[in-house]
Amino acid sequence: MATIVFCSVNKTARTTARRCLNSYSNGLASSVESPYSQLTTLLPSTRWFSRGSSVRFMSHGTAGRAGAGRTRRGALLSGAAAVTAAAAVAGFLANANHFQRAEMATKVSPISEEKEPEGEILERCRGFMSPPVTDIGELQERKWEMRTRMEMLIMQTQADFCKALEVVDGGTFKVDRWQRNEGGGGISCVMQDGKVFEKAGVNVSVVFGYLTEEAAKQMTSRGKVLKGKDGKLPFCAMGVSSVIHPKNPHMPTVHFNYRYFEIEEEDGSKQWWFGGGTDLTPVYINKEDAFHFHNTLKEACDKHHSQYYPDFKKWCDRYFYIQHRGETRGIGGIFFDDLDSPSQEEAFSFVKSCARTVVPCYLPIVYKHLNDSFTDEEKDWQQVRRGRYVEFNLVYDRGVKFGLATPGSRIESILMSLPLSARWEYMHEPAKGTLEAEMLEALRNPKEWV
Amino acid sequence: MATIVFCSVNKTARTTARRCLNSYSNGLASSVESPYSQLTTLLPSTRWFSRGSSVRFMSHGTAGRAGAGRTRRGALLSGAAAVTAAAAVAGFLANANHFQRAEMATKVSPISEEKEPEGEILERCRGFMSPPVTDIGELQERKWEMRTRMEMLIMQTQADFCKALEVVDGGTFKVDRWQRNEGGGGISCVMQDGKVFEKAGVNVSVVFGYLTEEAAKQMTSRGKVLKGKDGKLPFCAMGVSSVIHPKNPHMPTVHFNYRYFEIEEEDGSKQWWFGGGTDLTPVYINKEDAFHFHNTLKEACDKHHSQYYPDFKKWCDRYFYIQHRGETRGIGGIFFDDLDSPSQEEAFSFVKSCARTVVPCYLPIVYKHLNDSFTDEEKDWQQVRRGRYVEFNLVYDRGVKFGLATPGSRIESILMSLPLSARWEYMHEPAKGTLEAEMLEALRNPKEWV
Repeated sequence: MATIVFCSVNKTARTTARRCLNSYSNGLASSVESPYSQLTTLLPSTRWFSRGSSVRFMSHGTAGRAGAGRTRRGALLSGAAAVTAAAAVAGFLANANHFQRAEMATKVSPISEEKEPEGEILERCRGFMSPPVTDIGELQERKWEMRTRMEMLIMQTQADFCKALEVVDGGTFKVDRWQRNEGGGGISCVMQDGKVFEKAGVNVSVVFGYLTEEAAKQMTSRGKVLKGKDGKLPFCAMGVSSVIHPKNPHMPTVHFNYRYFEIEEEDGSKQWWFGGGTDLTPVYINKEDAFHFHNTLKEACDKHHSQYYPDFKKWCDRYFYIQHRGETRGIGGIFFDDLDSPSQEEAFSFVKSCARTVVPCYLPIVYKHLNDSFTDEEKDWQQVRRGRYVEFNLVYDRGVKFGLATPGSRIESILMSLPLSARWEYMHEPAKGTLEAEMLEALRNPKEWV
Repeated sequence: MATIVFCSVNKTARTTARRCLNSYSNGLASSVESPYSQLTTLLPSTRWFSRGSSVRFMSHGTAGRAGAGRTRRGALLSGAAAVTAAAAVAGFLANANHFQRAEMATKVSPISEEKEPEGEILERCRGFMSPPVTDIGELQERKWEMRTRMEMLIMQTQADFCKALEVVDGGTFKVDRWQRNEGGGGISCVMQDGKVFEKAGVNVSVVFGYLTEEAAKQMTSRGKVLKGKDGKLPFCAMGVSSVIHPKNPHMPTVHFNYRYFEIEEEDGSKQWWFGGGTDLTPVYINKEDAFHFHNTLKEACDKHHSQYYPDFKKWCDRYFYIQHRGETRGIGGIFFDDLDSPSQEEAFSFVKSCARTVVPCYLPIVYKHLNDSFTDEEKDWQQVRRGRYVEFNLVYDRGVKFGLATPGSRIESILMSLPLSARWEYMHEPAKGTLEAEMLEALRNPKEWV
């Protein structure tokens, strides 16, 4: 499997992302009673750089700490990553304002969102962490097709999130492009052992080819039966997924995933659906964080349908459930699958709202806890909870199970969701009345946070 | 689930176990070119204590570091645990001599082993880590039945192994008795964060009740179809299983498991079979250790059938295979299942030989590496390998999967096989020519060590 490293050290992007966050958190402070308004004081001072920061491609055979002696081949991509960062910021700001304007819709509300900036594909691609999986020329040719719009959205989401995390951490994502022999490929961005983040992974994949009817059925959570030509169905699947494990036990782990599927049946008709979700896994309960996280998701959902948040919140608690422990993985968020209504346009619009909500959901919480002190015992409890995270991901997660069982999968991208370190203590049970017991209680009996 | 702690702090046992090891390693030195003859110099000096060391039962609601405020109820078991320790030692010595006498049989060899010491059940039970799962009176009544003899063997194996480990570590096993609502129960012995061992777990379980035909089929690796009365089959399953994760990266992890099943079919006929195995998971290749470990197993196997070692060695490599990594979990050992030939007596005799081989397989390796120094990088590599151990156990291990999916299972006993800590580094790949690369190579291409 060919791997190309794409390193972007882009100070402009960091500065713009920072500005966005400032605006976001300032805006938020007026509408929600929240400690997030103080974020600006925590931000490091940065300088503006001119456009045109260089972005390099590197290829390597091995990686990781033990991977000494890599060979590197340099190639220059002329690019103004700043442009895209600015676009990302524009998206953010629009979003932040949007949340303030959002009304609690009780039915399907008209999609009032501004037209998405589907301007010049090439221009937008420059701000991504890497060129997209699909050839840019091909994307331009079919720019109005859903799979193009979704690929652009997931690339944009990856770039926005990675850049926002780089600003906080001061580190840089390692970018790996990989190809799938059977069709398509992906871009994995990983930052490991940073100042703030123990392990941060943001992965995009765009794969296509043919599915057997059985495999197609397994790809839908409700087990849709699809009819293929000679039992085979052309398909296309793409998504962005991410897991961020911070070092500080007072800073929660976040996970999100937004995906799109297209399958062509025997008669030429296309089946399509979206899936996704964003959920939080704290080590300790912080009600303000929980409110902020869920409320930000709820506002994004309510713009589209008043039942989305309550339904998808419940679905999330059900899905991220560690059966053998009788506890949820975290305090949830939203989760949905097989979304193919009310129309493709409206479903996409909802997914876009969700994807744009990732940074405002999580980054304010990160900044808030940036300087929290913690004890060895708190760090230990974090490591025990990380162990449960591993249990869920390896034993129950449908995506991981499907990925591990699929020949040709890129294992490192599937398992980048695992924490850098985890711990299993025999018969660990927090004493009554402790903060650890409070956390467990919330996992055993999921709460309403909004 | 009721849990009772049974703490035995038994210095006599330690001393006798030490003597056994000395004798064993001295004996071994003459027959095999091995560094294990120097072990005696590593052993701490100990004193003889009189018989009758007190052994206490304690019950507790919670455990682990965070489990402060346990309630403890004391109860005294008059016991001379020393007696059993001595019996264990006798077993050992007999075994060690046996291996020296063993000839490479080419066919089913006559079972020349001395009659097992199936003396007074009560007397033997006193040396166990806890009273057996089955009531001692019941065991005495049916003392010649296979399920009694097997329960005694697994209890004895647990005691021998735990005591040998306590001698090395200086720590004490925490002993939990637990009951299964549906029938039976178990005894879990765990030593955590000791001087030598990061996590050492030795578990006995004896369960019985009724199985559905589907569940019965799943319990055999070859999917035997069994006919039950109204679809239900009375069954009894028991076994001892253990995983030892040492702290020092030059000391390998060991795992063993010996088990027995009985199922009664509709017509009253009994199906029975044995399963088991012992395998080693080093962090670094040490050819002498690998030879000692495999050769000790081979000698035990060869006494019973010349095809056992080669067949069960291959089965082990096949079973402990991490499919998605394309590597085995460790350097193997032996693994077998569904063993129901040539007769129940001979199959049991083979299992007994294997169970008695656990200490001589592993303890000499532990002593040899007791004072090995190691670097941070070596510790890191150990943690990465531990991550792979977790992957195998949670994704592939049939026992773990069956246990986690079975309502009423004792999760802590199933997951005690997980290491205290583990690590997942993105794209970790050792550089060519390193000792880490040598280890990986052996996992990707299983070797013949004898």
